Amino acid sequence: MYQAIFFDLSGVLYTGNAAIPGAVEAVAQAQRSRLAIRFVTNTSRRTSNQIIGDLKNLGFDIPPEQLYTAPIAAKQWVKEHQLRPYCLIHQSIVPEFSDLDQQNPNAVIIGDAEENFCYKKLNYAFQLCKAGAPLIGIGCNRYFKLDDQLHLDAGPFIKAIEYASSSTPIIMGKPSADFFKQIVATTGVSENSVLMIGDDIFGDVQGAIKAGLSGCLVKTGKYLKGDELLIQEKFHIAGTVAEAVNLALNQVREEPD
Amino acid sequence: MYQAIFFDLSGVLYTGNAAIPGAVEAVAQAQRSRLAIRFVTNTSRRTSNQIIGDLKNLGFDIPPEQLYTAPIAAKQWVKEHQLRPYCLIHQSIVPEFSDLDQQNPNAVIIGDAEENFCYKKLNYAFQLCKAGAPLIGIGCNRYFKLDDQLHLDAGPFIKAIEYASSSTPIIMGKPSADFFKQIVATTGVSENSVLMIGDDIFGDVQGAIKAGLSGCLVKTGKYLKGDELLIQEKFHIAGTVAEAVNLALNQVREEPD
Repeated sequence: MYQAIFFDLSGVLYTGNAAIPGAVEAVAQAQRSRLAIRFVTNTSRRTSNQIIGDLKNLGFDIPPEQLYTAPIAAKQWVKEHQLRPYCLIHQSIVPEFSDLDQQNPNAVIIGDAEENFCYKKLNYAFQLCKAGAPLIGIGCNRYFKLDDQLHLDAGPFIKAIEYASSSTPIIMGKPSADFFKQIVATTGVSENSVLMIGDDIFGDVQGAIKAGLSGCLVKTGKYLKGDELLIQEKFHIAGTVAEAVNLALNQVREEPD
Repeated sequence: MYQAIFFDLSGVLYTGNAAIPGAVEAVAQAQRSRLAIRFVTNTSRRTSNQIIGDLKNLGFDIPPEQLYTAPIAAKQWVKEHQLRPYCLIHQSIVPEFSDLDQQNPNAVIIGDAEENFCYKKLNYAFQLCKAGAPLIGIGCNRYFKLDDQLHLDAGPFIKAIEYASSSTPIIMGKPSADFFKQIVATTGVSENSVLMIGDDIFGDVQGAIKAGLSGCLVKTGKYLKGDELLIQEKFHIAGTVAEAVNLALNQVREEPD
């Protein structure tokens, strides 16, 4: 049986400004069960408190310890390794990192820093990595869409520092196995007893499976007909998160569709 | 017999502020021969006129049509393809590109732009490439040393735009085969009758050989004992450029060391 459920947020619990029908009850039901629960998102422009507030407004009650954002996982990683990060991140999540010692840095965190990306700061990040500082990426997306235009995301800048310093980045964010494993480690259960519920066949479902978890694709959010045919791996399919939770609470792990 | 000689500049014709003994005479001798002569450099912070002036001060007389810098080759490439480039280049070589139509750009040239690299400009370069504009790199070096510190060169930024836009960059600068071929095309001879003389076993010698030219390593400039053992390809070795020119003017192509 599953011992933990990981929920993607956007497209699974809500779309736009509305909760998906049945999602609030399904999440509450999962939280009342014996299973470990985590909410997992790559969002890199909202602090955890902001996300919890947003979800509260939609009717979801998420304790901080159940939320794992890519920035939180990056922070956790440097804390566990007792490192002092140089943070090239979006202005809006700077408060999330303010309790970390960032003096005399010996690690680099690169997120979706937008206008904060300039030659001087990128050069400093490079010099640190070249001297051996680990490079931690908050996601590795190529670009995002805003105001009908495409904009550079964190990925290209991570690739730039990776190339310049010949270092191997640790990516915190779906579909990175490092990210999924980091979250699994907080649950105390083994990865093969975790079900990841998501609407992104690659980022959520395939990513989870590659990290040793099980995956369940929901047909809400960004789901498009035929998405289930895009990967070779075996996974569950559910109409909505309510169906997926029901499956996780009642079905044996070894029998995915 | 060879029908053309390509000379690397720094470390081959001069070191620091002094011509290498015999180099001025050797170059003049090559220029008086029936062979096509090209001077080939990756330098991306000096205009052609500045380089010709620098060489003049050392005693070398280089007609503009014999000099091929990486920026000149990039410029040539966009001209041949009748494209209007958006130029992210070093301030010092902006004049070199001023005669090109850069309105409403449909190509991107990325050089060692240093402080010119900012999010806004990189984002614009990305948007152009994502829309199909070719990406031309002036060299693809990882970093350079200045004032005893390492600094990001053009390469990481080219890699960033390449990753973001999924485009394949055309690199103008050694050791890129595109670059060597572009210069060979200006000589009217075939690449297998060209001898490239350089002090960099990888950038000059191996790069040239991979593009179909012959290579000659000189033991001046950045040459370090044992460099000749670092590559598998066959090439000539000469103590200085004077010896290399003598070899090119007198030796049959098919018998390298």
